[in-house]
Amino acid sequence: MNKLLIVGTVAFDAIETPFGKTDKILGGAATYIGISASFFNVKSAIVSVVGDDFPQEYLDLLKERNIDISGIEIVKGGKTFFWSGLYHNDLNSRDTLVTELNVLADFQPKVPQDYKNAEIVMLGNLHPLVQSSVLDQMETKPKLVVLDTMNFWMDCALPELLEIIKRVDVITINDEEARQLSGEYSLVKAAAKIHAMGPKYIVIKKGEHGALLFDSKEIFFAPALPLEEVFDPTGAGDTFAGGFAGFIAQSENVSFENMKSAVIQGSNLASFSVEKFGTERMIDLDKNEVVSRLKQFKALTQFDIEL
Amino acid sequence: MNKLLIVGTVAFDAIETPFGKTDKILGGAATYIGISASFFNVKSAIVSVVGDDFPQEYLDLLKERNIDISGIEIVKGGKTFFWSGLYHNDLNSRDTLVTELNVLADFQPKVPQDYKNAEIVMLGNLHPLVQSSVLDQMETKPKLVVLDTMNFWMDCALPELLEIIKRVDVITINDEEARQLSGEYSLVKAAAKIHAMGPKYIVIKKGEHGALLFDSKEIFFAPALPLEEVFDPTGAGDTFAGGFAGFIAQSENVSFENMKSAVIQGSNLASFSVEKFGTERMIDLDKNEVVSRLKQFKALTQFDIEL
Repeated sequence: MNKLLIVGTVAFDAIETPFGKTDKILGGAATYIGISASFFNVKSAIVSVVGDDFPQEYLDLLKERNIDISGIEIVKGGKTFFWSGLYHNDLNSRDTLVTELNVLADFQPKVPQDYKNAEIVMLGNLHPLVQSSVLDQMETKPKLVVLDTMNFWMDCALPELLEIIKRVDVITINDEEARQLSGEYSLVKAAAKIHAMGPKYIVIKKGEHGALLFDSKEIFFAPALPLEEVFDPTGAGDTFAGGFAGFIAQSENVSFENMKSAVIQGSNLASFSVEKFGTERMIDLDKNEVVSRLKQFKALTQFDIEL
Repeated sequence: MNKLLIVGTVAFDAIETPFGKTDKILGGAATYIGISASFFNVKSAIVSVVGDDFPQEYLDLLKERNIDISGIEIVKGGKTFFWSGLYHNDLNSRDTLVTELNVLADFQPKVPQDYKNAEIVMLGNLHPLVQSSVLDQMETKPKLVVLDTMNFWMDCALPELLEIIKRVDVITINDEEARQLSGEYSLVKAAAKIHAMGPKYIVIKKGEHGALLFDSKEIFFAPALPLEEVFDPTGAGDTFAGGFAGFIAQSENVSFENMKSAVIQGSNLASFSVEKFGTERMIDLDKNEVVSRLKQFKALTQFDIEL
């Protein structure tokens, strides 16, 4: 198996949806990525930062999933990053109510020595300079670097974002962000422009409408599983990314064919994540449920036309 | 092969998109359905009505595609149904500029004797009473009746619409219409409610986001082919329906498994329809292009995960 290095936030979230609201609960991109990747047979580590207000039980929860947390710095007297959001009725859009950067403001990521030769690197959504700093610390060239980002960095750190985009193999962004980054409305044209910025592979996440995987020639599409109810979309994109990266690390195969399976695995895991608040559903989830839903994905998409 | 009976409008359209505009051109649900179904080995007939302002060349065009047009009534001194629409920049929404019912206002459909035993009946978007009248004229029970409709009839002829919905096997509607008809936001819940209204199978068309096929237990999803440019969405839904019904008529197989293929065939043909104004692309299209794009659909959706 390959080693998977994850960088991203470990944080508090407070979430309000049409179905209810939470107090401060466990959140953060690296949290979702790490938990999702832990459904595969991988050796993984999270690089992040929290304050000393961060409960030990949350750290233990990651540790129990065999995630190396030695790269999660705990800042004495510091406060953990906090995000609060309100989802609208259709759950496709949300307002950010609070963003308190806290210890994230001065975050200097430190990659554990044991992970400086990780084959797979998953750069979760963070300031592009933090993402770059992680790549700078690698002692061997990774087989695959995956970058997740968002429109916020396009608005306020575009030059730095373009620098890190040049250095990665795969970028995962949502449809609106792909349009903003490329200036193209058509996602096919957007992917071509983003391809020219550096990444060999582009994953465009369309939420309830699934995800597209592009290389320079081919396109693959994974639907989102149609669900009776989406309860809380928070972390769905990160869960997707964690499943994608985790599956690739387990299979040690960075071919386009294998990435198709990785996109399905990521979509499958994300379909659970949205069923409860925060990480709740992912914590409960067992591997039999994962396999059983993968069968639903097969039934949902596979057809037989002789050509 | 099975016989396919089509009822729907044969009409003039005038279309404006961000890419240009047309004068009055050939349009109408039955036109798109008939042309699309003609890519399969079927015996088909259209039941419709036009005025004597309708060009003979348009009728010849249908005839040349082996469509029986004896059921298209030509009203002396009458004017053909005319629709004009303006698409917005994202092509996902449009304003209707003009609707002139003309001869459609008093349309009494007459099913040709030779098609009163058609195995497959495709009821294109029209007043529900006209759709019912076609079913009333059938002398043998069809193997499959497919209904297409739209929100307009939900607003102004709901009781009649619910009556015809009871009598069909398959309903095809778009996502917003499914929500309106069912009162449910979740498409899974919407499909369950519509299923309870009568149809065994529900196809929910999501435009650029593909189409879902439901029976009481299973779900199948066909993506729309990601295109560089959508030029004119007019008739895409009807082209989809024509491909769906045409493929089923050719294969003489109304199983859920075969309907999956039919949904792919419909999506495939619709992907061509939007590439030019009106029916232009479908008229030019040859069968090799159809097969070649079906291969793209396979590559787009098929994956290999051992379970």
